[in-house]
Amino acid sequence: MRRKLRDLGFSIGTLPVGRRNQITDVPGVQVGHVTIRKDVDERTVIRTGVTAVLPHGGHLFLEKVPAACFVLNGFGKTTGLVQVEELGTIESPIMLTNTFSVGAVWQGTLEYMLEATPEIGDVTGSVNIVVGECNDSYLNTARVMAVTKEHAKEAIAAARVEMEEGEVGAGTGMMCFGWKGGVGSSSRIAGGMYTVGALVVSNFGRREELRFVPYVPPSFDERDVPAGSIMMIVATDAPLDARQLKRLAKRAAVGLARTGSHVHHGSGDIVIAFSNAYTIAHFSDSVLQSVPPLVRDDAPLMNELFQAAVEATEEAIWNSLTMAETTTGRNGRVGEAIPYSLLRWIKWTEK
Amino acid sequence: MRRKLRDLGFSIGTLPVGRRNQITDVPGVQVGHVTIRKDVDERTVIRTGVTAVLPHGGHLFLEKVPAACFVLNGFGKTTGLVQVEELGTIESPIMLTNTFSVGAVWQGTLEYMLEATPEIGDVTGSVNIVVGECNDSYLNTARVMAVTKEHAKEAIAAARVEMEEGEVGAGTGMMCFGWKGGVGSSSRIAGGMYTVGALVVSNFGRREELRFVPYVPPSFDERDVPAGSIMMIVATDAPLDARQLKRLAKRAAVGLARTGSHVHHGSGDIVIAFSNAYTIAHFSDSVLQSVPPLVRDDAPLMNELFQAAVEATEEAIWNSLTMAETTTGRNGRVGEAIPYSLLRWIKWTEK
Amino acid sequence: MRRKLRDLGFSIGTLPVGRRNQITDVPGVQVGHVTIRKDVDERTVIRTGVTAVLPHGGHLFLEKVPAACFVLNGFGKTTGLVQVEELGTIESPIMLTNTFSVGAVWQGTLEYMLEATPEIGDVTGSVNIVVGECNDSYLNTARVMAVTKEHAKEAIAAARVEMEEGEVGAGTGMMCFGWKGGVGSSSRIAGGMYTVGALVVSNFGRREELRFVPYVPPSFDERDVPAGSIMMIVATDAPLDARQLKRLAKRAAVGLARTGSHVHHGSGDIVIAFSNAYTIAHFSDSVLQSVPPLVRDDAPLMNELFQAAVEATEEAIWNSLTMAETTTGRNGRVGEAIPYSLLRWIKWTEK
Amino acid sequence: MRRKLRDLGFSIGTLPVGRRNQITDVPGVQVGHVTIRKDVDERTVIRTGVTAVLPHGGHLFLEKVPAACFVLNGFGKTTGLVQVEELGTIESPIMLTNTFSVGAVWQGTLEYMLEATPEIGDVTGSVNIVVGECNDSYLNTARVMAVTKEHAKEAIAAARVEMEEGEVGAGTGMMCFGWKGGVGSSSRIAGGMYTVGALVVSNFGRREELRFVPYVPPSFDERDVPAGSIMMIVATDAPLDARQLKRLAKRAAVGLARTGSHVHHGSGDIVIAFSNAYTIAHFSDSVLQSVPPLVRDDAPLMNELFQAAVEATEEAIWNSLTMAETTTGRNGRVGEAIPYSLLRWIKWTEK
Repeated sequence: MRRKLRDLGFSIGTLPVGRRNQITDVPGVQVGHVTIRKDVDERTVIRTGVTAVLPHGGHLFLEKVPAACFVLNGFGKTTGLVQVEELGTIESPIMLTNTFSVGAVWQGTLEYMLEATPEIGDVTGSVNIVVGECNDSYLNTARVMAVTKEHAKEAIAAARVEMEEGEVGAGTGMMCFGWKGGVGSSSRIAGGMYTVGALVVSNFGRREELRFVPYVPPSFDERDVPAGSIMMIVATDAPLDARQLKRLAKRAAVGLARTGSHVHHGSGDIVIAFSNAYTIAHFSDSVLQSVPPLVRDDAPLMNELFQAAVEATEEAIWNSLTMAETTTGRNGRVGEAIPYSLLRWIKWTEK
Repeated sequence: MRRKLRDLGFSIGTLPVGRRNQITDVPGVQVGHVTIRKDVDERTVIRTGVTAVLPHGGHLFLEKVPAACFVLNGFGKTTGLVQVEELGTIESPIMLTNTFSVGAVWQGTLEYMLEATPEIGDVTGSVNIVVGECNDSYLNTARVMAVTKEHAKEAIAAARVEMEEGEVGAGTGMMCFGWKGGVGSSSRIAGGMYTVGALVVSNFGRREELRFVPYVPPSFDERDVPAGSIMMIVATDAPLDARQLKRLAKRAAVGLARTGSHVHHGSGDIVIAFSNAYTIAHFSDSVLQSVPPLVRDDAPLMNELFQAAVEATEEAIWNSLTMAETTTGRNGRVGEAIPYSLLRWIKWTEK
Repeated sequence: MRRKLRDLGFSIGTLPVGRRNQITDVPGVQVGHVTIRKDVDERTVIRTGVTAVLPHGGHLFLEKVPAACFVLNGFGKTTGLVQVEELGTIESPIMLTNTFSVGAVWQGTLEYMLEATPEIGDVTGSVNIVVGECNDSYLNTARVMAVTKEHAKEAIAAARVEMEEGEVGAGTGMMCFGWKGGVGSSSRIAGGMYTVGALVVSNFGRREELRFVPYVPPSFDERDVPAGSIMMIVATDAPLDARQLKRLAKRAAVGLARTGSHVHHGSGDIVIAFSNAYTIAHFSDSVLQSVPPLVRDDAPLMNELFQAAVEATEEAIWNSLTMAETTTGRNGRVGEAIPYSLLRWIKWTEK
Repeated sequence: MRRKLRDLGFSIGTLPVGRRNQITDVPGVQVGHVTIRKDVDERTVIRTGVTAVLPHGGHLFLEKVPAACFVLNGFGKTTGLVQVEELGTIESPIMLTNTFSVGAVWQGTLEYMLEATPEIGDVTGSVNIVVGECNDSYLNTARVMAVTKEHAKEAIAAARVEMEEGEVGAGTGMMCFGWKGGVGSSSRIAGGMYTVGALVVSNFGRREELRFVPYVPPSFDERDVPAGSIMMIVATDAPLDARQLKRLAKRAAVGLARTGSHVHHGSGDIVIAFSNAYTIAHFSDSVLQSVPPLVRDDAPLMNELFQAAVEATEEAIWNSLTMAETTTGRNGRVGEAIPYSLLRWIKWTEK
């Protein structure tokens, strides 16, 4: 039975944590996983999946959320960011999967959106699908492309507030710091009012990079592990616009940095941030769009939101490690769960 | 029989034109189309397709080309730009299709790349697939998603130096300035040495915007036409690096501007530029990468390359209009070919 | 007596024009010039100046305006854009001058702001000074650096609604398309409600590039003219946020493109856009910042605002030519005013 | 007598350190400081200065270096970045000072460049001056603007390989994590071949943020300290082009993140990176520019260069703290040197 970092006696940062210590502490956010495990033969071992993050429980195309992205290192295939950057909105579930399944998940998500929205492509234009990815081909036989478009729809349908972490969904086959990685999540309360939640799919780094714990030589050649990536999703219910959400997104990169990553050349380190404090209606007769009062950039609250994004992202990465179980994969490879004994070496505590 | 702008007695700019006046004048560049036309019933009429632009005739993953992109207006779903921006390379055919077929074309192109490159996903990481799109749902029943992943492979296989323009490939169902648009291409010689070629899929603008010709009221409600987009591909054999190619890409936007577009909110106006003057090998034992001498930024030649990109792009857009035949589509809609009589109104000539 | 393009019987675009056809048609915007002309000896001839654009008549630091920038070609020394990009606000007059006077104008503007705001640098932090420039060293002995910090303060003090165009202020020594350039301005009404105004300092291009008029060989060697630049300021009273203002700024580049510029390597082609529909108070006890209802990105009004920015910028550039008088400069050089006879060749008219 | 972190028994990271553990370990790089301290009366206390970083010992305008920047948080007034971004070169010393002295330092550096280069502004165009800043107005009476243009020239003239750290040059009045900050530097050897050096002017953060050491309540109100900033200069002799140097610059932000900064709203956190492995001649008769073989993006060496930038930047920040002496400033304020006893609490060591 794997546990979260906090349940092991450690913590990151000083801000209060949300009830579940998950991204779904942000009211309205839901997460769904589809986990695909199949052993065909020694070379064909499927350890992959899909994770869907729903910014709110309503119709995402009809009620878009303000959003932004930040690319720390762009060795990645995430789709949809061009439009997120231009319009500052997200209008579909944020989908996460393996590198080779972007097309299938894009397709399944599009079909889901078309089914839910007969107007798209008929009386109104198009829909922007956001799919992020990491490369799980160390454990997973990725070339088989086991993920189908149906899996994408299932992940969306599975979305709920109670979410699993570890080797589930898009995280099923991921490796992080030479240990088994996967899905991790954490949350913070900023200013006593607003929640910031982070969800990561962690798939980056080498053992020697993980800070604060001793180096344990791996039983495998780390050079066989693809360079990896990390997708970071940051959610908040604080009223921020797209420009401000880009600022928030950059702070997730600060959280990543603290774990020890050097942000390798081959790592797609990408942050997507959204607020569901308000929505932008797709259909409107109005020329003007109301925006609620936004957090002032110079308010102390803004710095707390930044701090919350830093802390929640760093802890989400740790949770992706401490929650993941040992997983065997293709070619007899084993993604070992990080032993909790290592954590005893963590000597510093936050003030 | 439709003709190119030059064959109608008009010209854009002052630089000499390549032999074919097409992007394939850049040695090594090949273009393939798959055109899909099917009349199921009045509401289900397929007018769409796929266009593949191959930067060179070799193995694109093993021999990548330097590349860059410029997003003038990001209401678009183009995939792969995150990695193009980071690494400054393209390692797959550049694929163009309709908005709803990005997933299928992405998938087909990935499968093509995996078949051609057994190492990907096994001993080496991943491949970045670039797919651009415009929304052809005025004429095409886009929701049916008639494009399959096989079409993508066929377009790649069909690539050659002799290329068609007008209502073919990705341009089959496109509308431009309220007339039938589609694929257009043009080229220029800069400094007497290097070729710059442009290929566009034109799908933007309203009749009143097209400059230099009189306004002809459309027989349809232009508000029914989706906001459109334009994909612009700029190729050159001049030795430029990624930073310089981004500069070149911006000049394609200058060419677009001259046709009359106001760059509407809903238009994805995206440029991808590459050079095939040299390639970057995927596999290498070397720590260092040789780069040939590059065009100096301050050389008069650089300004001629910029001018070439402006002129070729503007003329490519005109060619997409003058080459496209009248095309009937869904719901009895008709995309009318621009009448050549209108062009007689063009009164200015370049110096 | 020089005249504006419209007073010569020509027009750009189809939208209605503001009362003065100047940026100051945007209520609240004021413009001030200081023109410096001094003949010391043949080699030392001063033809330069400073232009100040005030987004509103109040205290700009205490009441900041939403703003954005777009760099079409970054061969330029404009200061302050890093912070405009991050915070989406402008908190000082927008100052324009020659390339070598950025420091002096920066200093003068800072001193003006410090005098007007005792709190800066004492109880509150800093102030972001925005200074744009073009290189007038063809006519002006720029190395002498005739502009002092006092000139900056004078330009600010001189700001009013009635503004001059042509060879005044920052435009005093500028050259455009091989003719005398300088300050030009124009405005448009979008949606019958909002005004978009453009002000340019034009200093780019060669004679052969200017579109629609015949080539007149210059009496000088155009290669002696520094590569030039253009600063474009776009103002509006439409309620837009920083993200939307960046979109507007990009449309100014479309206007520039239409005049014939190829956006040379050595040209700093930079747009700064702001709205004064609302302000953001520097001092506030509130955690939240109210934002008025903003123009919806997909409203037809937004496209009209875009069109307005295109048209106003293009016409402002023409006005900078038609308003500028012949100006003699250093080394006996002459910046000839464009002869109005040339304009008779303009054969096309907008619909 | 203050010491560097390593001389106190601590270290950051695992890569070997250069001979001096300073940015000047990169062959050719020189650093000059001018420190200005003056006590006029209690309210007017000058604690400020200028620091010049010379990428090489030759003529920087005639022999430009490839360069890039990365803005982590753009609450800053750094000049020159627009052109660095466009052309990928630096052609002047990189100047650092306080926020209110950007104009004076810009002016002094321009005059230095004009004196050294009679061609600028006469037969050739302009020169791009890069000036970075932090706000030292907690200790320094910044409104007095004690820095003159002569100080800039002096700092350039003072540049040499032996450089001071702590409360010198631009760092004289800076505060970091609620302690006295200032100039810090560090270096690493990557791949046993190339040196990466970092120099920072540290002026950010609150006491509670500094990681790994216990919180010591300050004797002053931390809200009186302006939000701060950090300028990070990264130098290398590895052959990288501008695109790659931007990647390197981003890794400096990773180093910053590890110290504990949340990257506050009001902090201008800006990185400038350059390589002096090769230069680009200003004057050239050639159309082409030779580029030496560059480090391959996917070479293990590139990841070591990234790691080097992370480690050197983090350690440079620590050095800015451990090297700075207690400094009294305006209004009786005291910037206390961090007590070394606190460091004993640092319990983790790198592997």
